Amino acid sequence: MKTKVGFIGLGNLGTPIAQNLIEAGYHLQVYNRTSSKLEALDQNSITRCSSPAESADGVAFIVTVLSDDKAVKEILTNENGILKTLPEGAVHISVSTILPETAKELDVLHRAAGSHYLTSPVFGRPEAAAAKKLWVCLSGPEEIKEAARPLLESISQGIIDFGEEAGAANVVKLTGNFMIQASMEMMAEAYTLAEKYQVDRTKVADFFGSTLFNSPIFKTYGKMIAEKDYSQVGFTAQLGYKDAKLVFSMSQQSQTPMPFISAIHNRLLSALAKGWNQRDWVEAISRGVTDDAGVE
Amino acid sequence: MKTKVGFIGLGNLGTPIAQNLIEAGYHLQVYNRTSSKLEALDQNSITRCSSPAESADGVAFIVTVLSDDKAVKEILTNENGILKTLPEGAVHISVSTILPETAKELDVLHRAAGSHYLTSPVFGRPEAAAAKKLWVCLSGPEEIKEAARPLLESISQGIIDFGEEAGAANVVKLTGNFMIQASMEMMAEAYTLAEKYQVDRTKVADFFGSTLFNSPIFKTYGKMIAEKDYSQVGFTAQLGYKDAKLVFSMSQQSQTPMPFISAIHNRLLSALAKGWNQRDWVEAISRGVTDDAGVE
Amino acid sequence: MKTKVGFIGLGNLGTPIAQNLIEAGYHLQVYNRTSSKLEALDQNSITRCSSPAESADGVAFIVTVLSDDKAVKEILTNENGILKTLPEGAVHISVSTILPETAKELDVLHRAAGSHYLTSPVFGRPEAAAAKKLWVCLSGPEEIKEAARPLLESISQGIIDFGEEAGAANVVKLTGNFMIQASMEMMAEAYTLAEKYQVDRTKVADFFGSTLFNSPIFKTYGKMIAEKDYSQVGFTAQLGYKDAKLVFSMSQQSQTPMPFISAIHNRLLSALAKGWNQRDWVEAISRGVTDDAGVE
Amino acid sequence: MKTKVGFIGLGNLGTPIAQNLIEAGYHLQVYNRTSSKLEALDQNSITRCSSPAESADGVAFIVTVLSDDKAVKEILTNENGILKTLPEGAVHISVSTILPETAKELDVLHRAAGSHYLTSPVFGRPEAAAAKKLWVCLSGPEEIKEAARPLLESISQGIIDFGEEAGAANVVKLTGNFMIQASMEMMAEAYTLAEKYQVDRTKVADFFGSTLFNSPIFKTYGKMIAEKDYSQVGFTAQLGYKDAKLVFSMSQQSQTPMPFISAIHNRLLSALAKGWNQRDWVEAISRGVTDDAGVE
Repeated sequence: MKTKVGFIGLGNLGTPIAQNLIEAGYHLQVYNRTSSKLEALDQNSITRCSSPAESADGVAFIVTVLSDDKAVKEILTNENGILKTLPEGAVHISVSTILPETAKELDVLHRAAGSHYLTSPVFGRPEAAAAKKLWVCLSGPEEIKEAARPLLESISQGIIDFGEEAGAANVVKLTGNFMIQASMEMMAEAYTLAEKYQVDRTKVADFFGSTLFNSPIFKTYGKMIAEKDYSQVGFTAQLGYKDAKLVFSMSQQSQTPMPFISAIHNRLLSALAKGWNQRDWVEAISRGVTDDAGVE
Repeated sequence: MKTKVGFIGLGNLGTPIAQNLIEAGYHLQVYNRTSSKLEALDQNSITRCSSPAESADGVAFIVTVLSDDKAVKEILTNENGILKTLPEGAVHISVSTILPETAKELDVLHRAAGSHYLTSPVFGRPEAAAAKKLWVCLSGPEEIKEAARPLLESISQGIIDFGEEAGAANVVKLTGNFMIQASMEMMAEAYTLAEKYQVDRTKVADFFGSTLFNSPIFKTYGKMIAEKDYSQVGFTAQLGYKDAKLVFSMSQQSQTPMPFISAIHNRLLSALAKGWNQRDWVEAISRGVTDDAGVE
Repeated sequence: MKTKVGFIGLGNLGTPIAQNLIEAGYHLQVYNRTSSKLEALDQNSITRCSSPAESADGVAFIVTVLSDDKAVKEILTNENGILKTLPEGAVHISVSTILPETAKELDVLHRAAGSHYLTSPVFGRPEAAAAKKLWVCLSGPEEIKEAARPLLESISQGIIDFGEEAGAANVVKLTGNFMIQASMEMMAEAYTLAEKYQVDRTKVADFFGSTLFNSPIFKTYGKMIAEKDYSQVGFTAQLGYKDAKLVFSMSQQSQTPMPFISAIHNRLLSALAKGWNQRDWVEAISRGVTDDAGVE
Repeated sequence: MKTKVGFIGLGNLGTPIAQNLIEAGYHLQVYNRTSSKLEALDQNSITRCSSPAESADGVAFIVTVLSDDKAVKEILTNENGILKTLPEGAVHISVSTILPETAKELDVLHRAAGSHYLTSPVFGRPEAAAAKKLWVCLSGPEEIKEAARPLLESISQGIIDFGEEAGAANVVKLTGNFMIQASMEMMAEAYTLAEKYQVDRTKVADFFGSTLFNSPIFKTYGKMIAEKDYSQVGFTAQLGYKDAKLVFSMSQQSQTPMPFISAIHNRLLSALAKGWNQRDWVEAISRGVTDDAGVE
């Protein structure tokens, strides 16, 4: 008989993760606010749930892939929240990008309820999730991490352990998102400078992306920025701004002045002010740079 | 009989390049302001010269590896400059990091004198130069680039062609230096943020350097920044500032607002103001970030 | 018989305000967390209260001079908060520097309780308060403003009306604090630049403060910054940072990118990170600038 | 008989200065590149000159009001420059806004020629110049300043002495221009923030301009910024950028990191990149802020 796992959150990232869990042999008790999203899953491998509580009922693990701090908190504490039904000793695997402070609050709630909280945000776009190429950043109690390992291995290409502190993996995740955004701003400035000097920006991006900066981030985003190709909206400016705001909030909370996050924050804030909320975050940053430079 | 090549500039980078040219079978006519530096070369493979003009006498190629715009201009136009003796049709291979505007001036001077100017700045620290692992950015007339190719191949792992414009390769070189400095600032901010949240900064650097940011720049500098290891001075804050100032000047010249170079410029300017001129540029940036954050 | 007025908050600013109200003939029902502060007031003109609720009991007006958003909210809604006893139709005159969003919440709470909320933050340091030289920024319902006018006139040199919206006067107050902080940063940069060029910074400050910038802000702070005289702590770096953070939050909330508040925010954040919390905010900004410039 | 004074530079500022000198009883030997500008002056009080040298011939004082460092240098050293004819012991009163480093060079040239250089940049728009309401910042040798005083008093409301160093008064002038530009950026950010919160920006500007910031700069520019009235072009974005660039260059030269000048520099650079060169500098800054905020 298949292991039952709760699952909440069928967004761009959640859906391929759920599919991989099913493929790995888990039976999912799925709840999603928009129930039509459940059609994307193999119906024989899921139980449709009408509330978070129903999804958490009787499982050893429940995975949530939600959009922000508020959504995760509510999924726990609402009237039909998962704390109502999650069995003692069960593990909540939280994949969302949230503040470390929020993770600590959730950890306390779980401890009080006799269940466990595992911080496991991931790096990777939806395509990477589909190909089981996510990177999982993990933090939480040792034995809980061990117990969750097989499940996490079935959705990722690697798991990196950042210790026992509830918020630690969130710190790494938000730090990484900052580095991705800073890379985008850096490339947008660099390639626009080259263009202004009549040097082919795609050639410059090619060169750096295959030599000194031959990493996934610089290859993927470098191409989009060099070609000013913003046709595919993988991640909206609005969500990008949300992350920049969280990083800025961490900078405030920890008293770490970060001039780069200040610049990125204002860049994305201006994108929202101009009504670009639903454009790709690459466009928000890259077009911000070219507009300021009077370049098409 | 060996091909004679002029060579000027035995700094940290010039010396291993000269050694590789000798190893490749060239006989070098070497001039260096500090003549003691010539001891590092195989004495059978060089002719010691007492002026730039002597170094350029009778050669088909002359390579210069100099520290700044002023030095390169003077090597051409001084009383004993190379234009005095460089044969008609000979090629000046200029490896220095200088402004594209300066390269154009030098190109004009060479054309007037009947010789050729080839822009060929390189990426790579001295160790990379010794290992023939430099990347050469090249721009200039097609046939001249072809003629110089064998020589350049003997010192590098790859040559990237950026067209015929004299300044184009300089644009790429300075753009790349900006991206390296921005990467350093980004990592310094990111890893300090992690540290403030009690997450091991070396572990964070390891993770990013082996996954999303697994490129030479992020590996090499990431380790130094994470470990706050500034013991080895590979490139001084003063030279780092010089580059930041050149990039800023390009931003002005081309009317490209670049918030990131503004932040880096001020970071390095503050390092000089504090008297850190001779420290490594990694320290100038990384310690600047940790000092502002009140971190040891 | 004297009019009874509730009064909460005997800080640096609250105490002289209370004294002026007493002098104007009001009888104050005073509550302060630290009760020893009440000794500073004429005991015949006050009734000592042991809770906010007691202070609000039976009055037509209650004045609060509190340090932040949280404190004002709690004074309303706590178990012994003023909403418990404030008579129907009575007016809460709120002098604190808080977010407009918070003011709107408080307004809603008062309306629900049948009482009125009047936003009336002030500009002026404690000495100005003592000399009845405050400027009152006022917003709220017309008839309520009229009713409160005599009381406010007794503590200020002028009342400026910003309409009926609860948060409007807070917007003006925080905007002004931003302008004051920006003036301080501007002068610190300018006078340090002059000093670096061996021009007497006090002379420069004198000149600007008596000609183009002959306003109170530039005179008062200009002298302190030029002389690097930080001996008198009128307003702490910690409180200065709090205001910068509120302005930054308004910038986020309203989608108004503000490069200057970003710079000031980081300047003050760094001051806190270095442990300068209890120093004067002028020192936090001015020493930040001189330290970065390597100047004593 | 009237004292003869050389005069070069009939721009927006130079013309009213020349008129006031004439009114004060001086006879001017005037040179201007565009000779039609001489029509604005009383023809009985001037001698029309066809070169700088002619203008300097036989005078005790020559006043120059030129646009930039290059122009002033050329007026001295060109084939028909003033050093060709300026009598020994005569005084060059230089009103231009130039770098202190340039002033020192000019001082050296004059000393070698046996004449004197007096640094006397002014604050004030053309209307102020016409009304003799300029402020003169003065530096140079004591006796020379004394000799020039009556002439300078006839065009200004006050003369402020910054010592004997040739460049000192330039430092003050450029420092002041920085403070003016920073005030404009500050007000643009502040009033746009207020507008976003539905608070009348003209009312806010009125309040600050008549209380805490009741100085000429905040009144004059505050009104234009609050009303977004950019119809009158008093000083172009191009000239404003030139000044910002000079201040930035001083920041580099003296190793004084100045985050505010970085922000202003990029703001004005973007204005040029967008083709706003000939708009008023107030528009360049103020519209930059509102555009970034998505405000009309």
